[in-house]
Amino acid sequence: MLEKIGTFHFETASYLLDFRGKATIPMIGNYLMHAAWNHASRRGFGFADMTEKRSMWVLSRLAMEVTRYPEASEPIQLHTWIDEVGRLFTNRCFEMVDRNGAPIAYARSIWAAIDLQTRRPIPLNEEGLKVYLADKTCLIDKPGKIPSIENETQGIDYKVKYSDLDINGHFNSIKYMEHLIDLFDLELFRKKEISRFEIAYLSEGAYNMPLTLHLKEASPDTYLMAICHEGKAICRAKTVWGRFLEESNEINKKT
Amino acid sequence: MLEKIGTFHFETASYLLDFRGKATIPMIGNYLMHAAWNHASRRGFGFADMTEKRSMWVLSRLAMEVTRYPEASEPIQLHTWIDEVGRLFTNRCFEMVDRNGAPIAYARSIWAAIDLQTRRPIPLNEEGLKVYLADKTCLIDKPGKIPSIENETQGIDYKVKYSDLDINGHFNSIKYMEHLIDLFDLELFRKKEISRFEIAYLSEGAYNMPLTLHLKEASPDTYLMAICHEGKAICRAKTVWGRFLEESNEINKKT
Repeated sequence: MLEKIGTFHFETASYLLDFRGKATIPMIGNYLMHAAWNHASRRGFGFADMTEKRSMWVLSRLAMEVTRYPEASEPIQLHTWIDEVGRLFTNRCFEMVDRNGAPIAYARSIWAAIDLQTRRPIPLNEEGLKVYLADKTCLIDKPGKIPSIENETQGIDYKVKYSDLDINGHFNSIKYMEHLIDLFDLELFRKKEISRFEIAYLSEGAYNMPLTLHLKEASPDTYLMAICHEGKAICRAKTVWGRFLEESNEINKKT
Repeated sequence: MLEKIGTFHFETASYLLDFRGKATIPMIGNYLMHAAWNHASRRGFGFADMTEKRSMWVLSRLAMEVTRYPEASEPIQLHTWIDEVGRLFTNRCFEMVDRNGAPIAYARSIWAAIDLQTRRPIPLNEEGLKVYLADKTCLIDKPGKIPSIENETQGIDYKVKYSDLDINGHFNSIKYMEHLIDLFDLELFRKKEISRFEIAYLSEGAYNMPLTLHLKEASPDTYLMAICHEGKAICRAKTVWGRFLEESNEINKKT
């Protein structure tokens, strides 16, 4: 049996960093997907295994907290493990660690399995998954319920495009993040960092689906977001902005 | 001295593939950028070296031809080398090879160096670059002149967003490709493959810049594209669609 905790190595690609030279939320999201995908595949419950059983994994909720964003060509390690298995949902955690072994981000994700044909949830292989339950602490709160804002805000129109689709032909989970993050004004990125990002996927987006993108400042530095189709949310998100950690970045550059 | 031809290894990330389970043009574009970036850095003329001299590389033109698109978790090798050095431009070539050593794609790119302050072209370090000139054949035509279409077509409005920006704060070269490719209807991807994609970058896009995206079928399977700002093209592109290589893909799956 493979070890319960999977560890993956990355080096941030400079040509993918944002205008500040930092990793973006969707980029970190892609690292998480990479780790989840490969951790599961190597342990017999990955994409191919699920397809064989005419099923697939769908990401239901994700929360991440970043204390320091990786910078150009920075080597990072990502640990991932399963910390809960229920009848219909399983929880997967992530810890991102820098070259000095210091944690710089945590994430929690909730996954369900659906039938490829009916697109409805199916019971998980609880026994098979529980073998890999790991006893490691994930230092952030679980993804919670995100309040609705679609009726109080004017949305921005968007249509799902070729580049938004994943291998299953649905709106790619990471692309939801990208379109939501793009709702913020660039000024905010100059002054602050996203300290917590949380997203709940409610239903699948498809090609050419007309959507509206919603944003509302709920309290200082806390924003609620939604992506809607015909007035109904297919996804909700919440972003908390924190202090711009300029000093800690300066320290990091010197080491 | 390092060898003239740089070789880079990738494995296509399944969660980044398109709805057909194939690598996309922007994804291949990112592989090219990765190889170019690292080939240059390791030989003393990379991003950091250029920044030190208050200059940077800008991609001026790129052409790629793909005979077979990489599929899920496929290991690929990318060779890159310099095949021409002029006073203001240098040509970099790429060859993408599959696990059996068969070439599946070629690309040619033309780069200029600009001054970080004035944003104007500066003479290249010809002697330094010529040391790495490699004598390897790149089997595709150079990027050529792309006809203007902006006056004959109605553009689609687009504004440059946070996720479109690169580390220099300008419209990311790969994101231009993504927005252009998204102009095609999904039906086309079901029937055909892009066999040649060519792009010319004319001026820099910036945050919030209002743009229009243009597409015109010039002849059967050949499309001209442009991205304009205030009616003037900041980028032109050309896409040639080829026969859908279903058979060769089937053969590949079996090996």
